[in-house]
Amino acid sequence: MFVLVNLKAYPCDPIEVAEAARDVSEESGVRVAVAPQAAHIDAVAETGVETWAQHVSPVEHGSHTGSTLAEAAADAGAVGTLLNHSENRLKLADVDASLEAAERTDLETIVCANNPDQIAAAAALGPDAVAVEPPELIGTGTPVSQADPDVVTGAVEAAAAVDEDVDVLCGAGISTGDDVVAAGDLGASGVLLASGVAKADDPRAALEDLVEPL
Amino acid sequence: MFVLVNLKAYPCDPIEVAEAARDVSEESGVRVAVAPQAAHIDAVAETGVETWAQHVSPVEHGSHTGSTLAEAAADAGAVGTLLNHSENRLKLADVDASLEAAERTDLETIVCANNPDQIAAAAALGPDAVAVEPPELIGTGTPVSQADPDVVTGAVEAAAAVDEDVDVLCGAGISTGDDVVAAGDLGASGVLLASGVAKADDPRAALEDLVEPL
Amino acid sequence: MFVLVNLKAYPCDPIEVAEAARDVSEESGVRVAVAPQAAHIDAVAETGVETWAQHVSPVEHGSHTGSTLAEAAADAGAVGTLLNHSENRLKLADVDASLEAAERTDLETIVCANNPDQIAAAAALGPDAVAVEPPELIGTGTPVSQADPDVVTGAVEAAAAVDEDVDVLCGAGISTGDDVVAAGDLGASGVLLASGVAKADDPRAALEDLVEPL
Amino acid sequence: MFVLVNLKAYPCDPIEVAEAARDVSEESGVRVAVAPQAAHIDAVAETGVETWAQHVSPVEHGSHTGSTLAEAAADAGAVGTLLNHSENRLKLADVDASLEAAERTDLETIVCANNPDQIAAAAALGPDAVAVEPPELIGTGTPVSQADPDVVTGAVEAAAAVDEDVDVLCGAGISTGDDVVAAGDLGASGVLLASGVAKADDPRAALEDLVEPL
Repeated sequence: MFVLVNLKAYPCDPIEVAEAARDVSEESGVRVAVAPQAAHIDAVAETGVETWAQHVSPVEHGSHTGSTLAEAAADAGAVGTLLNHSENRLKLADVDASLEAAERTDLETIVCANNPDQIAAAAALGPDAVAVEPPELIGTGTPVSQADPDVVTGAVEAAAAVDEDVDVLCGAGISTGDDVVAAGDLGASGVLLASGVAKADDPRAALEDLVEPL
Repeated sequence: MFVLVNLKAYPCDPIEVAEAARDVSEESGVRVAVAPQAAHIDAVAETGVETWAQHVSPVEHGSHTGSTLAEAAADAGAVGTLLNHSENRLKLADVDASLEAAERTDLETIVCANNPDQIAAAAALGPDAVAVEPPELIGTGTPVSQADPDVVTGAVEAAAAVDEDVDVLCGAGISTGDDVVAAGDLGASGVLLASGVAKADDPRAALEDLVEPL
Repeated sequence: MFVLVNLKAYPCDPIEVAEAARDVSEESGVRVAVAPQAAHIDAVAETGVETWAQHVSPVEHGSHTGSTLAEAAADAGAVGTLLNHSENRLKLADVDASLEAAERTDLETIVCANNPDQIAAAAALGPDAVAVEPPELIGTGTPVSQADPDVVTGAVEAAAAVDEDVDVLCGAGISTGDDVVAAGDLGASGVLLASGVAKADDPRAALEDLVEPL
Repeated sequence: MFVLVNLKAYPCDPIEVAEAARDVSEESGVRVAVAPQAAHIDAVAETGVETWAQHVSPVEHGSHTGSTLAEAAADAGAVGTLLNHSENRLKLADVDASLEAAERTDLETIVCANNPDQIAAAAALGPDAVAVEPPELIGTGTPVSQADPDVVTGAVEAAAAVDEDVDVLCGAGISTGDDVVAAGDLGASGVLLASGVAKADDPRAALEDLVEPL
């Protein structure tokens, strides 16, 4: 299982979470990565944790003020990027162009989507992985694997029907190791997490709990 | 072959084009529809021509000022809608929600896209049809069937791989009957047209030329 | 006082509201207008009521699929347009371009904004009027003139400091004649209404109540 | 005069430009700052040059994946931010909210706009400065101070009419010291530059030339 911790714009210390994620990953052997603000990629990557961007823009080098250039994210230390998160929905053509930008710079890619139909659409664009996150469950603390297991199995089937090589992650409401196990049992090869770790009083303990049953 | 004339925001007389399309369709037996500005759907539909919306918003009834509600378009006489035209690109989640809005109101749907990958993604969302229009050819007068036949056959294959029931149209640069025939030979079941008819000195003659070889 | 009834995407009968607004306006001498969906402008204008668009796009004639062309709205019978409603926020540059489009077609303009600073900004772009609508009060039934009178007087002062010729309307939560009178007492020269009329069981009675104390 | 070098998404070495800007600023006494990609703010700020963000998002701490949080930009070393650049146009309400975010984190602010009307609107929102950049001149090498001096003096007058404390910069096509002097003569207190430095074979020489006549 791959555990990706999305720090969003939370008021956490990204270095503290990054160091915890690095240590927990090393100790448990579970793959754990952290996706900080673009301005923190550099500092987070220096901790040695696997570092992801939260987004890259659908652009190449050029006149694009305020963009998040894939090359800059990679240069600062990112090795992957989320795309089309429900808090950052992209145009269909821009998901395609951002995937091209990520591929150009060897960033691994996860395209988020709301439901199995959109997962199939995302998978058709050729990312490394897709992630299904029902928007209504994000931040609720009720895990998608429990609240809506059919959306996870539906996403796994929908992606496989389009491209068997595309991994499927799930997210929304996941905060315990049991949630991660349940996600894996439904066919997911990883989970997206955010507040469960980033807003925890003790991010390290939260991460240890997450990987413990794996 | 289905010929859909997109009037965009062109300075044409929508009623003149509508009446010509109606007559040419009746005389030739070729299916011809017209997609006017939302504010003209009513008047265009009254001519008896098959009338399409250029877009419907990804919303239901509610507090959505400035939206193009599918129910209002249908109520005014539209029987179908374009979605995600390259001049009106939508978020992936909004293509999905606009399709749901169209289905709710029995509007037929064509989702536009740039290339075979995006066509596969669009097809995965379950529209009635998809249309491939390479943006760089729109308005050029060089037909896609001649300038880039591979993008048409690629789109036909990409859509079929995802869902065999989704028709494929093509657009960009089409202005003559030979272009329409060539599109059909490449596997398209229809064409999107715009300036070739809407900006013609004589729209009726342009339409007659288009359907003549069919 | 000017009473503008925004029908948004509500499931009302636009003709019923339009006829009621026309009659109430004629009987009371109060200026009342209705802003329907673009696809309903034609039918609403035919009732004889003053008809507004909910939005026009920042474009001229040309290749703009899915736009709401000012010329088409005017052609269908609109004499004015809302712009930048909180449910349809525009880029600063697009407010400017939409105002230009409206001016080109002799549409009267009201630019909406959230607070006095944004009202000053909107006024600087030269519309006929601005409207302050605190988003948190929209649809609440609690009138802005009562819940937050300072935002109305602040908007009146902010607009006057930039351009004394720009009228100020207010909206959000207005549903009774007393609310309209209170808005006028705070310096507003009109009100924006929506659900209070459009979702009323009896729109005509709701409108009669609104204009009664004027 | 304030010289702000916007690195956009150019394929330059941000550290090389930053070091050159730092040295030229120290040697000449002219204020020079550099605005890199968000992912490069950290490394650029470490050179000691004054560092700006190209954009900050209209958000506070919270669930905002892919945003550019003002706190993160400030934390990484930015002391100011551009907003509403013509390559990153914002909604009017978002210019307001991004200014609030910048103020919250003590970032100095420059709001860009196309023309004097929009400059007045931007000034009404209370930034530290505004910058007029006619989009049609960006990247042309023809300086705005020469191609369209009226837009600069018009912007200076428009901003002063709204708020005398708001500085006015200008941009588009500026690449030589004479251009900077001409901008100052028209009333600008600074200039925005991009390709003239970022794409120069020798950024240091380009900067030295720029500040030489000051």
